Amino acid sequence: MPLTAKGNSSLASAPPWHYVGDLIGVEFWATAAAAEASLPSGLDPDPTDSGHGHVLFIDWQFNGSGDEYLDPVRSRYSECMVLLDAAYQGQTVAWCPFIFVDNDTSMARGWVQGFSKKLGQVHQTRAYAVASQAGPVLGAGGTFAGTLSVAGRRIAEGRVTLTGPSTSPAALSRPIVNLRHFPRLQAGRHDDPVVHELAMSVLENVEVAGAWTGTGSLSFFPAPGEELADLVIQRTGAGFRSTLSFTVADLKILD
Amino acid sequence: MPLTAKGNSSLASAPPWHYVGDLIGVEFWATAAAAEASLPSGLDPDPTDSGHGHVLFIDWQFNGSGDEYLDPVRSRYSECMVLLDAAYQGQTVAWCPFIFVDNDTSMARGWVQGFSKKLGQVHQTRAYAVASQAGPVLGAGGTFAGTLSVAGRRIAEGRVTLTGPSTSPAALSRPIVNLRHFPRLQAGRHDDPVVHELAMSVLENVEVAGAWTGTGSLSFFPAPGEELADLVIQRTGAGFRSTLSFTVADLKILD
Amino acid sequence: MPLTAKGNSSLASAPPWHYVGDLIGVEFWATAAAAEASLPSGLDPDPTDSGHGHVLFIDWQFNGSGDEYLDPVRSRYSECMVLLDAAYQGQTVAWCPFIFVDNDTSMARGWVQGFSKKLGQVHQTRAYAVASQAGPVLGAGGTFAGTLSVAGRRIAEGRVTLTGPSTSPAALSRPIVNLRHFPRLQAGRHDDPVVHELAMSVLENVEVAGAWTGTGSLSFFPAPGEELADLVIQRTGAGFRSTLSFTVADLKILD
Amino acid sequence: MPLTAKGNSSLASAPPWHYVGDLIGVEFWATAAAAEASLPSGLDPDPTDSGHGHVLFIDWQFNGSGDEYLDPVRSRYSECMVLLDAAYQGQTVAWCPFIFVDNDTSMARGWVQGFSKKLGQVHQTRAYAVASQAGPVLGAGGTFAGTLSVAGRRIAEGRVTLTGPSTSPAALSRPIVNLRHFPRLQAGRHDDPVVHELAMSVLENVEVAGAWTGTGSLSFFPAPGEELADLVIQRTGAGFRSTLSFTVADLKILD
Repeated sequence: MPLTAKGNSSLASAPPWHYVGDLIGVEFWATAAAAEASLPSGLDPDPTDSGHGHVLFIDWQFNGSGDEYLDPVRSRYSECMVLLDAAYQGQTVAWCPFIFVDNDTSMARGWVQGFSKKLGQVHQTRAYAVASQAGPVLGAGGTFAGTLSVAGRRIAEGRVTLTGPSTSPAALSRPIVNLRHFPRLQAGRHDDPVVHELAMSVLENVEVAGAWTGTGSLSFFPAPGEELADLVIQRTGAGFRSTLSFTVADLKILD
Repeated sequence: MPLTAKGNSSLASAPPWHYVGDLIGVEFWATAAAAEASLPSGLDPDPTDSGHGHVLFIDWQFNGSGDEYLDPVRSRYSECMVLLDAAYQGQTVAWCPFIFVDNDTSMARGWVQGFSKKLGQVHQTRAYAVASQAGPVLGAGGTFAGTLSVAGRRIAEGRVTLTGPSTSPAALSRPIVNLRHFPRLQAGRHDDPVVHELAMSVLENVEVAGAWTGTGSLSFFPAPGEELADLVIQRTGAGFRSTLSFTVADLKILD
Repeated sequence: MPLTAKGNSSLASAPPWHYVGDLIGVEFWATAAAAEASLPSGLDPDPTDSGHGHVLFIDWQFNGSGDEYLDPVRSRYSECMVLLDAAYQGQTVAWCPFIFVDNDTSMARGWVQGFSKKLGQVHQTRAYAVASQAGPVLGAGGTFAGTLSVAGRRIAEGRVTLTGPSTSPAALSRPIVNLRHFPRLQAGRHDDPVVHELAMSVLENVEVAGAWTGTGSLSFFPAPGEELADLVIQRTGAGFRSTLSFTVADLKILD
Repeated sequence: MPLTAKGNSSLASAPPWHYVGDLIGVEFWATAAAAEASLPSGLDPDPTDSGHGHVLFIDWQFNGSGDEYLDPVRSRYSECMVLLDAAYQGQTVAWCPFIFVDNDTSMARGWVQGFSKKLGQVHQTRAYAVASQAGPVLGAGGTFAGTLSVAGRRIAEGRVTLTGPSTSPAALSRPIVNLRHFPRLQAGRHDDPVVHELAMSVLENVEVAGAWTGTGSLSFFPAPGEELADLVIQRTGAGFRSTLSFTVADLKILD
């Protein structure tokens, strides 16, 4: 898309799609009712901890088969996503009700995966490889912030203070299930989508490094045209940070 | 998309979709070969003037059923589109190989219509309701420019000098046929899209005002990841400007 | 600035500077104390109505001597400014404590004039020359919004509903007095600016058309790093809209 | 600037200013004539290698005294700068004819230092702390790109392939001399600036880590309103990459 004569103009180039990014995240609990209201048909509330989830802020770099990372204006982008614990036919999964990026190629690839990506302004604090008063240490006591704005309105802010090294973040332990959806516009069939199917993400070659855990805080702010704040936060849990890479070349359609 | 609990977060709200915009456009001829190479299966070269087309730069304002124009950060956006003469089963139509906008809701609505919209920076010169040395007259001798950049690279520039009033622009006289496309990501089926169909736009309540015609000039510039300049311009024809409004609530699937 | 070999790269080209724009504005009253706290040394509170002011949202087009309006990516920009009634040596003037634009050349020209411009996202509803459900009429009952965000946070929203034609907006009737300021960075002299002087704007060839008046509403929202909301709004008055043009080639330094 | 009641809204907060960033750079030679044409009065051509310089692309994070790095939308920004070898009263220095950033607070601080910053879109390839097909290794063979666009036109591209570790980049070895300039707008005095003085940057607490050197390539592209490409590149030399931090709280005015 678009399907051009040479295929060089496509937003979503042919897989495999390679990703590497710095991630900061905060664990939170919304009300079970709010979490369940966000679930699509076919997904069930998490049997043990409905309302539990994570917000992730990720500074990504993308690469396909064309050395895209050497045109960084296209390759680098930032993302904010919400993951909620859920279940699919008894399997514990993560459901992504909200996700925002600042790049159209990421949006296009996401839609193909079932991520209903919108554009947002996403920023996170960085750690650098040199001591400085201009940033946190990547270590105990280092504090990192992540922020999300949509259409000029701040709708999420998270903050993480690291306490110790950890293994891979728990937020990454469940497969993500999305809703692939493509509507019809014919008069009389607006409510009869041509594609409407649950899909489970397939991540290959997952690598995690530099994982730290700590404490987290998180706020969602209401805004017109956004429902993120309907996930009223009851409390927050761990904060965490890591670097992450993986490859996407497949998707499992659930039915 | 996304399909949320309340439906307030969707990129593409339920139709009808109302549009009003200022349009400047330039008529051009690419080689017949280049134009034909851009056609999807099912569309034929225009029988009388293959290679003939128009570039339009439009400053839009969108409204749905929620007074969207009172949140102008979401409602106003700019678009650049290419239309090429073509034929569908003997009917003369316009085919849109390239289209760029600076707003994600427009991108989402466009994809549903079959417009393969990407993000771009689109700007045009404005005329204002007061005499000034800061802009052109909307009248004979007034000169207007339209520009398109993608990922920080200028890829199109058009310029129009008005000579006299006109009726509705010829560029708007043919129905637009798009390719609705939604791919599969399952391994082994990347080339087997779930949706791949020609679709003809249905515009209602079309109104045109302030139409002027004149001379036009146009340049396309090559850039990595863009194929616009493959439409090598042989010559340009008329330039034109108008204000335009219409409503979209339907789409005709061709098969 | 920058002063280059040929002078073609400057942010602020040599005057005269020509402007044309669509303006929507809302009259408001802050507390006298808040208005007075914003005044620089040398300006006095307005003797009759301290706290009274206006917020303006303007969609500008700029032109110098180089047909800048034919490169609209540089020429067109949007601005939001606050004007407060004040007095200079007994003369009633307008003081501009806050002003935001979305373009660096406007920021540079503004600093030379004494406007302490910052970058912001500014948007306003437009009226178009054709009937449409996608926008307001430029006439009785037409409603227009203006919005301002800074660093992804919404900090001002205004709304105007027109009731009848008017003469030139009262908000434009007073000369604007700014504080031209250029600091020192030498250690020990951070508080000893090299330039610190009141300056009165000089507008030539002022033209106003399409002026309407009506009712207005206005909200300021607090945000880190912004003091706009310290101007706590007590009530709002008229709303208005017009098109405006003028030329700037001079400045009167007050002392 | 602006000087507000509380001082919380200023673009340029009170020094000290702390910076940390990832830098990629390319050494180049323009013609001596082009380099000398860019020099302000008071600076002489470099006595041994006039025309020699560097382009730097830097992903910065800024911090003042207010934990600015915890609002990363304001703190993080990207910069592209050109440094040319020159001499001041016999001392070898670096002169910065062109510099671009994507953040207004950086622009304001820069102007105070004498950097004539303009807004640009600056991007660079990143290395991450995990193995991945989505980015280069920070080591031998790793290739990084830096790009600069202004007003939607690509005007510089550099590329660096690392060959081995190095000490601090040579590009950072000379003090930078800028031209602090603040014009007058009074009619008749447009060419009589109120501030026009050479200033030498003072960097404290300079720390460099992760320095690698290698080969570099570089292109400048002409664009309306930009003179960067007047520095016609004759050849390129080393490419390099490092992380860098320092503090700014002083400036040395030369006279």
